[in-house]
Amino acid sequence: MADCIFCKIVEGAVPSKKVLETDTVLAFHDIQPSAPVHVLLIPKKHIPTMNDVTAEDAAAIGDIALAAQQVAEALGIKDRGYRLINNCNDEGGQVVYHLHFHLLGGEKLGPILR
Amino acid sequence: MADCIFCKIVEGAVPSKKVLETDTVLAFHDIQPSAPVHVLLIPKKHIPTMNDVTAEDAAAIGDIALAAQQVAEALGIKDRGYRLINNCNDEGGQVVYHLHFHLLGGEKLGPILR
Repeated sequence: MADCIFCKIVEGAVPSKKVLETDTVLAFHDIQPSAPVHVLLIPKKHIPTMNDVTAEDAAAIGDIALAAQQVAEALGIKDRGYRLINNCNDEGGQVVYHLHFHLLGGEKLGPILR
Repeated sequence: MADCIFCKIVEGAVPSKKVLETDTVLAFHDIQPSAPVHVLLIPKKHIPTMNDVTAEDAAAIGDIALAAQQVAEALGIKDRGYRLINNCNDEGGQVVYHLHFHLLGGEKLGPILR
C-alpha cells in the first residue's frame, strides 16, 4: 500500500527501531510509548484491520503470538508479563489502518479499561 | 486441567453465556464486564499464557482472530470497532491462567493505558 506508513516501515522507506523481524512479522518500538516497553507487532502483509484477517492470513496472526514471546524475552519482560492490544476500527481506537498489536510492559499495568 | 475455571467452562461443568463455539475456540460473556460488550475468547486447549503458545498452537491463535470477527458481527460492533486484549503474567494483569483475549466494545473506547 503506497500510502501506508507501516508498509513503508516494512519496506525500509521509513526508519524504525526494530526489535524483531521474521519472514511474516515486524516488531518495532512505538514512537509515542504509553509504557516503559511499547512495541508494535505487525504482519508484513498489508491487512487493514482485524476484520480483514482471512483464513489464509490466520497463520500470520499465530506468528505474531510467537513473535510477541521473542520480543518480550529480548526486552526482559517475558516472565514479568506484558499486555497485547489490538484496536479495531474507530470505536476500538485504531489510528493506523495496517493491523498491529501493541505490546506493553515494563511496569505493573493497570486495569484493561479506565 | 482439573482446577482451571476456563477448562470447566469448555467442558460445560461451569455455566457461561456463550456467544460462539468452534472446534478450537469458545467465546462467552465476561461475568464482570468492563464495557457494554465484554466477551472472552479462549482456545479450548489449556494453554496457560501467551508465553506458552507453541508453533503447533499458533493456528489456534489465528482461529481466535477469526472468531473475534464473528463475535463482533454477532453483537453488532464489527464495523463500529472493538479492542482485543491479552494479559500475560503478573505485570500484564493476567488473573486466570488459561490463555484468553478480552473483546471490548459497544462504546468509543479510551486510550490503551491510563
